[in-house]
Amino acid sequence: MASNGNGSLANGACTQGKPIKCKAAVAWGPGEPLVMEEVELAPPGRLEVRVKLLFTSICHTDLSFLKGENELQRKFPRVLGHEAAGVVESVGEGVEDLAPGDHVVPIFNGECGSCAYCDSGKTNLCGPYRVDPFKTTMTSDGGTRFSVVDRSSGDRRPVYHFLNTSTFAEYTVLDAACAVKVHPEAPLEKMCLLSCGISTGVGAAWNTANVFAGSTVAVFGLGAVGLAVAEGARLRGAARIIGVDINTEKFTKGKEMGITDFIDSKASDKPVHEVIREMTDGGVDYSFECTGINGVLRESFLSTHDGWGLTVVLGIHATPKMLPLHPMELFDGRRITGCVFGDMKGKSQLPGIVDKCMNGELKLNFDGFITHRMPFSDINEAIRLLEEGKSLRCVLHF
Amino acid sequence: MASNGNGSLANGACTQGKPIKCKAAVAWGPGEPLVMEEVELAPPGRLEVRVKLLFTSICHTDLSFLKGENELQRKFPRVLGHEAAGVVESVGEGVEDLAPGDHVVPIFNGECGSCAYCDSGKTNLCGPYRVDPFKTTMTSDGGTRFSVVDRSSGDRRPVYHFLNTSTFAEYTVLDAACAVKVHPEAPLEKMCLLSCGISTGVGAAWNTANVFAGSTVAVFGLGAVGLAVAEGARLRGAARIIGVDINTEKFTKGKEMGITDFIDSKASDKPVHEVIREMTDGGVDYSFECTGINGVLRESFLSTHDGWGLTVVLGIHATPKMLPLHPMELFDGRRITGCVFGDMKGKSQLPGIVDKCMNGELKLNFDGFITHRMPFSDINEAIRLLEEGKSLRCVLHF
Ligand SMILES: [Zn+2]
Ligand SMILES: [Zn+2]
Ligand SMILES: [Zn+2]
Ligand SMILES: [Zn+2]
Repeated sequence: MASNGNGSLANGACTQGKPIKCKAAVAWGPGEPLVMEEVELAPPGRLEVRVKLLFTSICHTDLSFLKGENELQRKFPRVLGHEAAGVVESVGEGVEDLAPGDHVVPIFNGECGSCAYCDSGKTNLCGPYRVDPFKTTMTSDGGTRFSVVDRSSGDRRPVYHFLNTSTFAEYTVLDAACAVKVHPEAPLEKMCLLSCGISTGVGAAWNTANVFAGSTVAVFGLGAVGLAVAEGARLRGAARIIGVDINTEKFTKGKEMGITDFIDSKASDKPVHEVIREMTDGGVDYSFECTGINGVLRESFLSTHDGWGLTVVLGIHATPKMLPLHPMELFDGRRITGCVFGDMKGKSQLPGIVDKCMNGELKLNFDGFITHRMPFSDINEAIRLLEEGKSLRCVLHF
Repeated sequence: MASNGNGSLANGACTQGKPIKCKAAVAWGPGEPLVMEEVELAPPGRLEVRVKLLFTSICHTDLSFLKGENELQRKFPRVLGHEAAGVVESVGEGVEDLAPGDHVVPIFNGECGSCAYCDSGKTNLCGPYRVDPFKTTMTSDGGTRFSVVDRSSGDRRPVYHFLNTSTFAEYTVLDAACAVKVHPEAPLEKMCLLSCGISTGVGAAWNTANVFAGSTVAVFGLGAVGLAVAEGARLRGAARIIGVDINTEKFTKGKEMGITDFIDSKASDKPVHEVIREMTDGGVDYSFECTGINGVLRESFLSTHDGWGLTVVLGIHATPKMLPLHPMELFDGRRITGCVFGDMKGKSQLPGIVDKCMNGELKLNFDGFITHRMPFSDINEAIRLLEEGKSLRCVLHF
């Protein structure tokens, strides 16, 4: 992976400690197109950093919040976006591990490094900075850093934050625990995918499942996360990676990315788990549920080998439904586990992964995920492409 | 643990290869008392052994099948019973690891040692000999070894097997994979508890959960399995073992067995998981569900610490209900897993555990589980005691 020009550093000297006026794509209400607004961004508070973003991309979670699919998670106006990369413009009081000019990747699932959770070594769910879909303000003071003038009233009003990140803006303020410093020569256009999709999928294969060489894997749902799971499994030497989707157009890309077998679940006349069990002499060692559909979760669970199969749930599932499994089905030795951000500890693990990509030790296929590139101003067009299943990742540049 | 007299060896010399007539407590129909019958027991077939039983005890699973709680599992007449200990009377063709005179403990979850499952090293679910609640005949030929004369018709009819064991009889035939040879001086009255209750509970703490020293544990349901979990956790050095039950009479025995805290779930005015989280600064490291009640399963899941808590499901849950968990609840880092026979590989692990008990290295409190002793002929009385919650284990001697 070669380095490329990342754009100039933010001129921290003249903006530090002052509000910054910049462009942001603001979500004003459920289902409405984003509106490019001039927002004001306060300086970073205690343990916060302000970052000039150079790239951002769009993930299905952004779409879900934009549509307001879960009523409890609606809060407008809001700056969405959680995949990005940029340069630290200034740091707030108490920030010791980041400085202006550092290249950073925001992470929605932070790592403070010092709470009981981070200390435990058993989880990547940090106490204060873990992902929280209900959070709309900053951790330190419960306030927002963005504000905008409401066109109808003429009053300045707060613009809410999203998933510890809010990257659909030229600048954003992050908790320092949610900004990962990466190698200064790492290409930020690619690094942006480490914020969510690639880290989640690759991490699910490496950290959560610990896929072993020669194993068999099934991936349900071939979006960016599913393909990143396949990428993680491929890099671990999985013997067979079976991709399942209802959209056969995704199989071409899947093949490019190293998926070895495909099942069109719409065309199958028997349950997918039966097809997979037949293909694999009893079931795969690992299955990954990347769709958020309850029936698919059940198929993915049943598609693993009894005795030792593990299903990793990555899809975001709608509120009212229960797990479609019977307690006694746990007694066949199939296991199931959830996975947040690929069980990656962002600040501890990602810089090392980036370094390995830089020195060629690790051949993570970032380019395979980037299907489109556009200027930030075309964000609504980029959203449409993702919604229609036409893009995997569209990287927007500022 | 001192050795005691185990009774004499079976006189294999005169019975080998011939049917044996012996007493068995036969279940004739759902909910009916067992009837002491003279049954005929065929010689062991290929890869089978015939065992003279010296002790048997009763477990709730026997009661469940006797009542016919699950219609699909009804099959009568049948010899129930799966906790026992005895002496090999004769062995069938191909049996290499057992010989007449060997002291053995039947296990309902066998270990052949050579199938793909046994070879995998990842599960204690043997391909051909794993526990199967629907199985009513022998593995080798699908036949029964027991037969009885039907009083009404006068015809000889087959008597069905149960859980690879059928120990409510003076003699039984087992697959060799379901008979564990133990130290010849080990007291068989105690060994009998290794067939199910103690192995399941202790194994859940050791193998499934791998409880670490200083950890916190919650046990839901203080029957024999729950107390065996506590015993396993105690031997691993758990700092705190919280026992939960609706029957406070069980707390006295629980205290004797090393449980440190008790919650009367009937008396609590808030959900038990909240009580446990308050007691333990956020939740226990491990919880064990030993009741088979869906609502209790949910409480036990929620009582563990987010980020790393593990719930082990041991209770047998009624057929139609689904897991009372939402997929998104898996994303808080709480894990859940089923557990069969304490993830013990019976033939590989139990003999070593017995040896350690014999040489004093391991202080497993067998005596704590034996609350009653009776002759085999009083089996219906022993069943009543267990049903009424008055006994933990009543050991019947032949
Ligand atoms: Zn995302
Ligand atoms: Zn932390
Ligand atoms: Zn039992
Ligand atoms: Zn086997």
